[in-house]
Amino acid sequence: MKNPAPRETILSLFSQTPDGFVSGEYISAELGISRTAVWKHIRNLRQAGYVIKAIPSRGYQLQQSPDILMPESIQTGLDCRRVGSLVHCFDETDSTNLQACRLGDEGGEDGLVVIADRQSSGKGRMGRQWESPGGVNLYASILLRPAILPFEAPKLTFLSAVAVCRAINNCTGLKPTVKWPNDILLNGAKVAGLLNEMSSETDQVHYVVLGIGVNLNMRDDQFPADLRYPATSLAIATKQPVSRLEFTRSLLQEVDALYQMYLEQGSEPIMAAWTELCDMTGKLVQVDCNEVQIEGTMTGLAEDGAWLVRTKTGKIESIYAGDVRPA
Amino acid sequence: MKNPAPRETILSLFSQTPDGFVSGEYISAELGISRTAVWKHIRNLRQAGYVIKAIPSRGYQLQQSPDILMPESIQTGLDCRRVGSLVHCFDETDSTNLQACRLGDEGGEDGLVVIADRQSSGKGRMGRQWESPGGVNLYASILLRPAILPFEAPKLTFLSAVAVCRAINNCTGLKPTVKWPNDILLNGAKVAGLLNEMSSETDQVHYVVLGIGVNLNMRDDQFPADLRYPATSLAIATKQPVSRLEFTRSLLQEVDALYQMYLEQGSEPIMAAWTELCDMTGKLVQVDCNEVQIEGTMTGLAEDGAWLVRTKTGKIESIYAGDVRPA
Repeated sequence: MKNPAPRETILSLFSQTPDGFVSGEYISAELGISRTAVWKHIRNLRQAGYVIKAIPSRGYQLQQSPDILMPESIQTGLDCRRVGSLVHCFDETDSTNLQACRLGDEGGEDGLVVIADRQSSGKGRMGRQWESPGGVNLYASILLRPAILPFEAPKLTFLSAVAVCRAINNCTGLKPTVKWPNDILLNGAKVAGLLNEMSSETDQVHYVVLGIGVNLNMRDDQFPADLRYPATSLAIATKQPVSRLEFTRSLLQEVDALYQMYLEQGSEPIMAAWTELCDMTGKLVQVDCNEVQIEGTMTGLAEDGAWLVRTKTGKIESIYAGDVRPA
Repeated sequence: MKNPAPRETILSLFSQTPDGFVSGEYISAELGISRTAVWKHIRNLRQAGYVIKAIPSRGYQLQQSPDILMPESIQTGLDCRRVGSLVHCFDETDSTNLQACRLGDEGGEDGLVVIADRQSSGKGRMGRQWESPGGVNLYASILLRPAILPFEAPKLTFLSAVAVCRAINNCTGLKPTVKWPNDILLNGAKVAGLLNEMSSETDQVHYVVLGIGVNLNMRDDQFPADLRYPATSLAIATKQPVSRLEFTRSLLQEVDALYQMYLEQGSEPIMAAWTELCDMTGKLVQVDCNEVQIEGTMTGLAEDGAWLVRTKTGKIESIYAGDVRPA
């Protein structure tokens, strides 16, 4: 849709040379800009946190990159069929889901990704707020255009849940669990939340947006005091920082692989993977559904994605919306 | 949300006097504008097709209104709880559904109505075009915000179908039939089409837009030559023009009444009403579902809104999307 910015092209040139050295002359020729302009871009990259060494006879060498999420660094070498074919990165946006929905309304393509360093109006489920400070976490929204019926779409929440769990495991070795309908937990504390949105007509989905917020390097003092549930981050759990770039790339690859599987095999394998990640099966739970409260034993997922709870009277309730907690 | 335009206020003043006479002085005082400004508005109304008589000692009298759709004329005396609380009328818009979705994204309220005299990109189902010439038909979209789950929303197509049939019957005495999933027929020819769209998250509908296009006064020569199915209009069927204003008001009242019933009693009574309007029950039909073609006897609607067809082997197929025609 648009040409990459000069600084992204320069970064890609660094990744293409075997010894990491790129001469100013080469950059100047590749980008069709003056040597002075090259020098200004290098200066700006250094100001943004890149450590770039200059050796007179050999050129520039990229020695260290800051943990900034940019399309070029996310996309280079990404092994995806659809997801990440186009990546938009914002320093700040109202909400990556809103941005992705806007792009969806304008015809944005299957697999488009919106990422923001921080969100001014991060959205949680049911209109709740999602705390979105800058520089520490991942706020991503992925636009998908599967040829499915509207009632199939809610099951895609299981897809993003499984993808987030796998990316967390890839990057930290931790084993997160899932909490119906859209939370990812580490030792019972929320580390990621999902908010899927859809635009559809009666018998055709226009697009689905998978909204994914993962607490990567958030510190204890950055969480609001009035959280409904305990929260954590990967850095709190592992006691070391997580590379946002590495996590983002891992997540996009997992989403892409699961999406491919979904298109080929339907939702069953993904729901099976989700069920394996859920440690509440067989446990006593309480569910708040609007005005009603249901208590019973979680027995699994129904084919249509409902959460099945067997109450004391033996009746199986199919739950499509609500907040779950151990009873 | 906004004050009515002066010409709408003037029209409402006419409807409020017992003898239909309103003095220029009174209009001037009510609107806080000069007598010259009043005269200019009267002149503009006459140019728009209003027949307004001026009698020196008594004032202005509205003798005839053109069949123009304006918020004031639609809303005055409308007996609705929600639908039509706010009405936007456009001379031309791309698509009333797109407008209503935009207003929905911006927080537009339950019952908001968008009407256009003509559409430059009128939308039919599955991305098809909807022929939308000016001055003859009704193109309306109604924004609803029911507190329902996404999988319930497709059933609202039955609501708009029943409302359109009732409005047609109210205004012409004709008895239209419904064709699954979203057409209204007169003697087998399409007279109206529905396109419902939805914005939702996994367990909450943000809004539904009921898109309704009714061929009221369209002439035979105004239909495109390459229509997939035969089409007609109320004027062709009755051999006399239909008042767009009267039809619009009747339709909004029927939608409002059915919506109230839906909120109180759920979708069952509406699906029963739809089934009564469907003359294909028990008949042999052919359904094109993407790549597959299914032939069988239509047996009715499933609880979830699917169209049930019993094939030759006796198997009942649940159909959620497709084009139906007699076999």
